[in-house]
Amino acid sequence: MKYNPLTKEIIDELVEIVGRKNVISDKEKIETYSHDETSADQYAHMPEVVVRPKTTKEIAKIVKLANKELIPITPRGAGSGLSGGAIPVFGGIVISTEKMNRVLDIDYNNMMMVLQPGVVTNDINEEIAEHGLFFAGYPMSVETCYIGGNVAENAGGGKAVKYGVTGRYVMGLEVVIPTGEVLELGGKRVKDVTGYDLKQLIVGSEGTLGIVTKIIIKLLPLPAVKEDLLVLFTDVKSAINIVPEIMTGARIIPTSIEFMDKLSVKTSCEYLNEHLPYQQAGAMLLIEVDGNTEEQVEADAEIIGELCLDKGAIEVYVADNYTTQERVWSVRRNIAEAFKVVSPHQSLEDIVVPIAAIPDLMPELERISDKYNIQIPCYGHAGDGNLHATLVKNPESSMQEWYEIEKKALREIYQATKELGGTISGEHGIGLKRKPYMKIVTSPVELELMRKIKKAFDPNNIMNPGKIFDL
Amino acid sequence: MKYNPLTKEIIDELVEIVGRKNVISDKEKIETYSHDETSADQYAHMPEVVVRPKTTKEIAKIVKLANKELIPITPRGAGSGLSGGAIPVFGGIVISTEKMNRVLDIDYNNMMMVLQPGVVTNDINEEIAEHGLFFAGYPMSVETCYIGGNVAENAGGGKAVKYGVTGRYVMGLEVVIPTGEVLELGGKRVKDVTGYDLKQLIVGSEGTLGIVTKIIIKLLPLPAVKEDLLVLFTDVKSAINIVPEIMTGARIIPTSIEFMDKLSVKTSCEYLNEHLPYQQAGAMLLIEVDGNTEEQVEADAEIIGELCLDKGAIEVYVADNYTTQERVWSVRRNIAEAFKVVSPHQSLEDIVVPIAAIPDLMPELERISDKYNIQIPCYGHAGDGNLHATLVKNPESSMQEWYEIEKKALREIYQATKELGGTISGEHGIGLKRKPYMKIVTSPVELELMRKIKKAFDPNNIMNPGKIFDL
Repeated sequence: MKYNPLTKEIIDELVEIVGRKNVISDKEKIETYSHDETSADQYAHMPEVVVRPKTTKEIAKIVKLANKELIPITPRGAGSGLSGGAIPVFGGIVISTEKMNRVLDIDYNNMMMVLQPGVVTNDINEEIAEHGLFFAGYPMSVETCYIGGNVAENAGGGKAVKYGVTGRYVMGLEVVIPTGEVLELGGKRVKDVTGYDLKQLIVGSEGTLGIVTKIIIKLLPLPAVKEDLLVLFTDVKSAINIVPEIMTGARIIPTSIEFMDKLSVKTSCEYLNEHLPYQQAGAMLLIEVDGNTEEQVEADAEIIGELCLDKGAIEVYVADNYTTQERVWSVRRNIAEAFKVVSPHQSLEDIVVPIAAIPDLMPELERISDKYNIQIPCYGHAGDGNLHATLVKNPESSMQEWYEIEKKALREIYQATKELGGTISGEHGIGLKRKPYMKIVTSPVELELMRKIKKAFDPNNIMNPGKIFDL
Repeated sequence: MKYNPLTKEIIDELVEIVGRKNVISDKEKIETYSHDETSADQYAHMPEVVVRPKTTKEIAKIVKLANKELIPITPRGAGSGLSGGAIPVFGGIVISTEKMNRVLDIDYNNMMMVLQPGVVTNDINEEIAEHGLFFAGYPMSVETCYIGGNVAENAGGGKAVKYGVTGRYVMGLEVVIPTGEVLELGGKRVKDVTGYDLKQLIVGSEGTLGIVTKIIIKLLPLPAVKEDLLVLFTDVKSAINIVPEIMTGARIIPTSIEFMDKLSVKTSCEYLNEHLPYQQAGAMLLIEVDGNTEEQVEADAEIIGELCLDKGAIEVYVADNYTTQERVWSVRRNIAEAFKVVSPHQSLEDIVVPIAAIPDLMPELERISDKYNIQIPCYGHAGDGNLHATLVKNPESSMQEWYEIEKKALREIYQATKELGGTISGEHGIGLKRKPYMKIVTSPVELELMRKIKKAFDPNNIMNPGKIFDL
């Protein structure tokens, strides 16, 4: 597929649509739109122009124009993605949703909120907390990511064990599809079986089927009480072994069961200048429980704490107030950032396996770490079987060697994950970065169906081309 | 689209695939496969042959044959559907999953179960209750329906307020697509963003994209305690008004908030020879709360009970043991059956609106009831805004008049539902019955995308043709 370059005439038309100051083509200014949070060295690509529309109508006009002129479009939220989904690999137009950042409606009676895609995820909860409601999406980039990006990637995060991922809360969408037509899907209703569920098909489609311009999310009653347990173990294996036991043995589904190995905790603490007790422990679990009464939450926490001690935990620390909770969660949230400072050359993964298979995954990671002589710190959402194994470049390798090692080690990790009944991405998406590995976990029949769906929405392949699979 | 008739040669091939006793063409014996629980008078159509395969391989062979010979296939579960989804409108082959009724795996450590599609939904929970687990799907036909049908329709039911609908628990599917190829989607993992979510696209696609041959469902820890409140109100409006208040005011999400108007309770009680207290109340809510401790469940129930009394409930009855709970739930579950005995000519609907719009829907139903001089008893899942308004034929009308009235009244109900932000089906599906009304709630752009997806899966339109939309 050959795309056309942007001509002066097309730029003029873009200016007509969104206004001069919202069309950026200055090289220095658009550099930031050439990458996301995946390694810029490997994946960055410059757009020809960045536009910042404010309305659905403007987006529809831009998309119609691009579809007519065969110009590739790359939709972009906050750029916090971890699969290269927002990288304009074929140049063309980046449509940034940064100026579509309004909360359109807070509907307390229906417990719904209507949002533009550029609203920062964390701001949602700040708007509604005083009304006793909350949005259960909680990606680790919550302080910077946009809700539109969360929808595009079907973002998971720290509360998915109990509350599920973004898609569960998306009740309605307005989408500009690649032909420039506007699709309204769902609404303020919690059940809907009228035909195929195009809404959930758009969720997680990584901006390849259209640009989400309005999102209706479902809110939940904000639990009145929460409590966090920081549980220390001598080693990774004993920490991980406890995870399925909490749910099947104690019959409690915690809000979160986050796992951090020693290297992850240490690195994040140093980055934040934070001092958690027992940094010397081999591995930690951060377990949160929530509920409506102190009695219930304390009872759940106690049952879990005792189970952990029974099964070999060194120590259980309780964080039951905002300050201590924020301290431990901040360590967890900042692991990825911390590693970037220490070592910019790495591959942050989000492999997922059945929870009971986590203990079997760990020796595989060790084996691959030894084989390629690289560190693979590991942390993540153990309660979902979703682990951020992170391949870190050995300082002794050349960049050339590192790229080779990364490719081989990734393939082995993905293969091991698949053999344990898992898959290569639980929440970050395929995008550009994992596209070469899709065939490990997706059959030719399934890939062909995905391609046909893509063509049904996007006959000219102008919408975020080069992502997930090649056409 | 013209289909070919079944020849003797094709019947012989079917016999070769599934064995002689699993190919039924005797008119009397296949009559039962000509309809589901929608009105047989209006919608029934005879198949040419019914086959009862036992394995995925057999189904794949049958589908390949049908696709080659251009014979329509209609997949069928228990036949408990309420939209005509299992009716073979073009004749051809009905593939019944009645002999694929095995539980293939109960995986306690992963809290998952692997099922063939013909397993009766209620049997799932009977298998796992003693291990402290449960499957949260709970359609009112739970005692007869199959899990395969639940997946095909994305069945809702009585526990959706708190636990969501079937789709939330479907982690993996094996599907024979209309070309006869076998698709494996998902697995025993709770997060997965590798490409488009074909699994959720299959869920609720009403057997038009393929036949589900294996289902992996997620289980939850079985709540140790539950309590039901039967709350009596003088009239429908005050009952319905309380629904959003429970969730936004008391901040509790009950397991169920079921609504029954006077006529519904009375009819079901008479059918069951049951005597609920205060049958003379104008409307009732059946509210269930569950949890892990008696204290917590009692506290939630008390808060809800007091809120109801504050807002004008006549009386709140507590059912806190199995016998009384089964009594009240049996009344709720049997309403549809009861009405069939009283009046076989009716249209059972499952319209859905935003919960806060339920009070505005009721006068619309009254208006339409008056205009057409028909009774419209109403009951259903008030906590989801999903109501089983049921149009019942006036005994004084001729059948001809009734069909005319039904069409007009349905259109007005659907239109009113749409104007309140709702849609025409929350859990029963579109199937054959609601196909003429799809355009009320689905835009031409959306319908066209659905058609393209259908064609991507089923180029010859052999799989459950004539359902949801026409090609």
